Amino acid sequence: MSKVRVGIIGAGRIGKIHVDNLLRIADAEIVAVSDLYANEELKAWASERGIGIVTTDSSELIKHPDIDAIFICSSTDTHVPLIIQAAEAGKHVFCEKPVSMDVNKTKEALDAVEKAGVKLQIGFNRRFDHNFKRLRELVAQNRVGDPHLVKITSRDPNPPSPEYIKVSGGIFMDMAIHDFDMARFISGSEVETVYTQGAVLIDPVIGELGDYDTAVTTLTFTSGALAIIDNSRRAVYGYDQRVEVFGSRGAASAENDYPNTVTVSDEAGVVRDKPLHFFLERYNEAYVEETRMFIDSVRHNRPLPVEGNDGLQAELIALAAKQSAKLGRPVKLSELI
Amino acid sequence: MSKVRVGIIGAGRIGKIHVDNLLRIADAEIVAVSDLYANEELKAWASERGIGIVTTDSSELIKHPDIDAIFICSSTDTHVPLIIQAAEAGKHVFCEKPVSMDVNKTKEALDAVEKAGVKLQIGFNRRFDHNFKRLRELVAQNRVGDPHLVKITSRDPNPPSPEYIKVSGGIFMDMAIHDFDMARFISGSEVETVYTQGAVLIDPVIGELGDYDTAVTTLTFTSGALAIIDNSRRAVYGYDQRVEVFGSRGAASAENDYPNTVTVSDEAGVVRDKPLHFFLERYNEAYVEETRMFIDSVRHNRPLPVEGNDGLQAELIALAAKQSAKLGRPVKLSELI
Amino acid sequence: MSKVRVGIIGAGRIGKIHVDNLLRIADAEIVAVSDLYANEELKAWASERGIGIVTTDSSELIKHPDIDAIFICSSTDTHVPLIIQAAEAGKHVFCEKPVSMDVNKTKEALDAVEKAGVKLQIGFNRRFDHNFKRLRELVAQNRVGDPHLVKITSRDPNPPSPEYIKVSGGIFMDMAIHDFDMARFISGSEVETVYTQGAVLIDPVIGELGDYDTAVTTLTFTSGALAIIDNSRRAVYGYDQRVEVFGSRGAASAENDYPNTVTVSDEAGVVRDKPLHFFLERYNEAYVEETRMFIDSVRHNRPLPVEGNDGLQAELIALAAKQSAKLGRPVKLSELI
Amino acid sequence: MSKVRVGIIGAGRIGKIHVDNLLRIADAEIVAVSDLYANEELKAWASERGIGIVTTDSSELIKHPDIDAIFICSSTDTHVPLIIQAAEAGKHVFCEKPVSMDVNKTKEALDAVEKAGVKLQIGFNRRFDHNFKRLRELVAQNRVGDPHLVKITSRDPNPPSPEYIKVSGGIFMDMAIHDFDMARFISGSEVETVYTQGAVLIDPVIGELGDYDTAVTTLTFTSGALAIIDNSRRAVYGYDQRVEVFGSRGAASAENDYPNTVTVSDEAGVVRDKPLHFFLERYNEAYVEETRMFIDSVRHNRPLPVEGNDGLQAELIALAAKQSAKLGRPVKLSELI
Repeated sequence: MSKVRVGIIGAGRIGKIHVDNLLRIADAEIVAVSDLYANEELKAWASERGIGIVTTDSSELIKHPDIDAIFICSSTDTHVPLIIQAAEAGKHVFCEKPVSMDVNKTKEALDAVEKAGVKLQIGFNRRFDHNFKRLRELVAQNRVGDPHLVKITSRDPNPPSPEYIKVSGGIFMDMAIHDFDMARFISGSEVETVYTQGAVLIDPVIGELGDYDTAVTTLTFTSGALAIIDNSRRAVYGYDQRVEVFGSRGAASAENDYPNTVTVSDEAGVVRDKPLHFFLERYNEAYVEETRMFIDSVRHNRPLPVEGNDGLQAELIALAAKQSAKLGRPVKLSELI
Repeated sequence: MSKVRVGIIGAGRIGKIHVDNLLRIADAEIVAVSDLYANEELKAWASERGIGIVTTDSSELIKHPDIDAIFICSSTDTHVPLIIQAAEAGKHVFCEKPVSMDVNKTKEALDAVEKAGVKLQIGFNRRFDHNFKRLRELVAQNRVGDPHLVKITSRDPNPPSPEYIKVSGGIFMDMAIHDFDMARFISGSEVETVYTQGAVLIDPVIGELGDYDTAVTTLTFTSGALAIIDNSRRAVYGYDQRVEVFGSRGAASAENDYPNTVTVSDEAGVVRDKPLHFFLERYNEAYVEETRMFIDSVRHNRPLPVEGNDGLQAELIALAAKQSAKLGRPVKLSELI
Repeated sequence: MSKVRVGIIGAGRIGKIHVDNLLRIADAEIVAVSDLYANEELKAWASERGIGIVTTDSSELIKHPDIDAIFICSSTDTHVPLIIQAAEAGKHVFCEKPVSMDVNKTKEALDAVEKAGVKLQIGFNRRFDHNFKRLRELVAQNRVGDPHLVKITSRDPNPPSPEYIKVSGGIFMDMAIHDFDMARFISGSEVETVYTQGAVLIDPVIGELGDYDTAVTTLTFTSGALAIIDNSRRAVYGYDQRVEVFGSRGAASAENDYPNTVTVSDEAGVVRDKPLHFFLERYNEAYVEETRMFIDSVRHNRPLPVEGNDGLQAELIALAAKQSAKLGRPVKLSELI
Repeated sequence: MSKVRVGIIGAGRIGKIHVDNLLRIADAEIVAVSDLYANEELKAWASERGIGIVTTDSSELIKHPDIDAIFICSSTDTHVPLIIQAAEAGKHVFCEKPVSMDVNKTKEALDAVEKAGVKLQIGFNRRFDHNFKRLRELVAQNRVGDPHLVKITSRDPNPPSPEYIKVSGGIFMDMAIHDFDMARFISGSEVETVYTQGAVLIDPVIGELGDYDTAVTTLTFTSGALAIIDNSRRAVYGYDQRVEVFGSRGAASAENDYPNTVTVSDEAGVVRDKPLHFFLERYNEAYVEETRMFIDSVRHNRPLPVEGNDGLQAELIALAAKQSAKLGRPVKLSELI
């Protein structure tokens, strides 16, 4: 394959990010974009980027003979049917997380992918972050020895709107799912049990919607190691994304990224600017890198860095977390399968 | 009271530390030391420090008319009877943690203290650490707003001997009890529920003794806030003692102390020395400060910085943690009373 | 002007960087590239980037009616004649530093630019670095008060080849010139006196070529403030680029950039990766930003962020530093004009 | 010698610090204190510390048969005659810096000490600071290779009173003398040439007294290495005491000490408390350590960590700095001898 020819389904914020990132990758070519609300503005936007086809019909992309791979950036409820269609059409798929909110449906999608022998990468972009990638490297190189504990801090600067929360799948399926994947990624181990304590401390509306805005989760891995994750929907100082791994030979710790390294010392103390504000700033290069890796994997038929099963496992953990917070007891993943 | 005249029961490592610290406090005078194994060496040691009485009989100190306050630094099983005797003799008491391993006995000690109207300070020295004291100040000044989450990292450089583990009360009653107190101290709130996941990842002998060497604990407070604590008996890089508090207005974080601020940059990277190795180095000044506060409180009849109830609450949490780890479910403190 | 149409003279390393950066700027269009050694490879490279004209003749670009601005990325000796030709042809100019090694020739170029009423930006890319830009902002906002002292650390990972050193103008004109500009940029003040102590501590060959590999320079500003700059041609730990400014109200300090924020703690200490290795990594985004600002200034006829006089002043300081190191005494800029 | 018996001449601030530090050293015994203004208050103070003799007559101490060592903590003009008297009486001497403001007189004192075969330690307490001691260790262990450059930042929080400045010997002899000693200490090399640029940027009164409040000094060492030192009489954020050494194999850097490790993150940024405020806080333990080393050296007849010649060399550099700032040219130490 000389270039990987791509079709983008869904041209919302994340779809547009993927387009701009793909334009920076010499081995990718964007053939078409589909969006339910494709309008003149989108056509102009696509034209500026040299994208020839703009359509409201996603199946047009899936059937297109000159498209090798589909990026699914549309709403979560469309992911499973689109993955199945794309797989049946022999297209490789990059799909945003979560695959679905129903573990059985996710499995159907994975089965279709396996049967078709195509590739399916899930959008766990944080695995490609310069800090977390380095952390994983260090674990893989045995620099910290056997992992005993993974600690993940994951706090957003501000909660999403109630409207979004209603359809998002809640704090576990929408937000913490990234951290559940991170725990598996860093430890290199599978999760066995989940205990989650949820709380509503930021906005009672979130509680009224049946969701939490603050949560603490303990994971146990099949290896015997543990993980703890804390999530919050509002960190007034910005985006707080840190990971630490502690093992038999040492510990490694990834701090936040900052817009600059400047500190000011005056009568009030020593101050530096807040961390990078939110995921678009913090994970800017990680988005590029995940796309580059997907294109490379497709082009050279190499293993994917994040596979369908990674999406499934993270969904299972999210589901267990949700149940644990509700039931007030630890939940085993094996209860859910 | 011009000077507070002190008797020390138990002249082991911690007893000797208290003696040397008391010598630095102008308002304290050490009248006597008792130890079951008082020998010539101890007498010489005491004599160098100008301590007139060295005895094997602790009751001699308790009855002594020129002693105002007793430091109980003997083994844990002696704490309760000694507190009761001292209280009945009208002496103020400083007692090392834990008061006992039996919550009911601890209550008896506290009742005796209350009845006698004397003061009882528990040796939670970490409250006096320069970092954690500053963290508490910041919370008290509302600099982080309402606390949502307290995160405590507490890892020892090396596990104690199996002999010690057998009599220590285990990781929760011996080691994590400091962290349980820290969670209450920083948050200013009482604990309601405890969930602990214990693991044996460092030394199987510890598991054979019915103890854990690694543990992760989630606490819920009556305020609705949460805490997470991770404990390990072996951090190869030294003593790891960090606390973070996250709230509605911000977060505050206390890092480890280091022997110096020097970094070396060479072809291998940028390196600095390991954190201060263990509690004697790290909490050196905190020990002095807790003693100074106790002497001040007794001398000027001021409220104590750590009271008997603080000892009791931490023991209850430790007990709940032990049960939770065993039962595999969250345990409410109210189940234990 | 809808888009700024650009011609690139000199397609070496730095010329190619500017091309790739210009491709990321929507308001710029690259019309042509000239290089003395234009070959098939360069044509293929240009063609991939959609650049229609590739020539060995720089005057073809300067005369081209569809070119608004010229990037001069050829060797230093060509800068002055090319600036004069471009200015006379009414083209705006972006020129790499230094303009020349002869202050009088640099003045001729500046005169031509002034006469023609075109813009001339000098490639002091470090002004656009996220850290130094923030430092300048803080000074401009009076956060540190009146500047008293600017301290600049500027060390390269490895010395260039003897061949390069021969033609480079030496450590002051080639390397420290960036720091001389930085001192003016941060302080917002003009330099009056220069004292430089040069040394050959890394490679005697550098000394044999009449150059230094290590230097310390003290500057005095007309404002009364001071600056100190230390330069080295070899820092084994990588590129060391730090700036500090100290003033009546406080101090601000910019540290190095690192490839990630990860630290590893083990028995040997706490270690992190070395700083970003060299200028292409460290100033990657600064190069994009200087180009974007040039294009914006040309397009909207706004003041330039770095002007011809900035090039001249830095050259004067470099010249004074060279003389001071040779003469062993402070040199006033007024001696050189 | 079982214990080193000490007499203290001068019971001002620094004399009292030495007394309290000596009380913490088991091998030292304070026999007597002299002070021109010995009054009832001083007697009470000495009595509390078990010091038997309080006198206005320093010669009483020097002649006292039960005194082994004299601490000279009186005003600078008394240092030389007291050193000579003490040496002639066969007493070891600890003397505060500077020995004198007249290099020839300092030499007389050193000659007397040499002739008498007694020990003379100069109060360069910063050599005992945990950070700088570690830095020196690293250089001595060849961790940074051959030193190329020593960089010293030395800024006081506030200028002393005009009265003090008049008698202090000025910024170089009073304040920077510590940094001149530090440069020799860290590099392990002797100074050859001094260039100093002085400025009056903080308080014109300081300039009217013929002194500077801001200075930048370049030193060259006989080894070929360089040093740069910046001094300021006012850093509004507190005491700024940092040292960096750069060499053929790497660099080592000592940062400031802080009262705690806590950072607070909120909407305004990430802030920590200011560095330790001034020399009594920052060098508290260094004062204890220098005294302990002196007592040890005397008791066991070991080499001193700081000798008379260290005092002389620092004075020579201070003198050269003063002349250089006045003359506007580099000054060689050899010009002064």
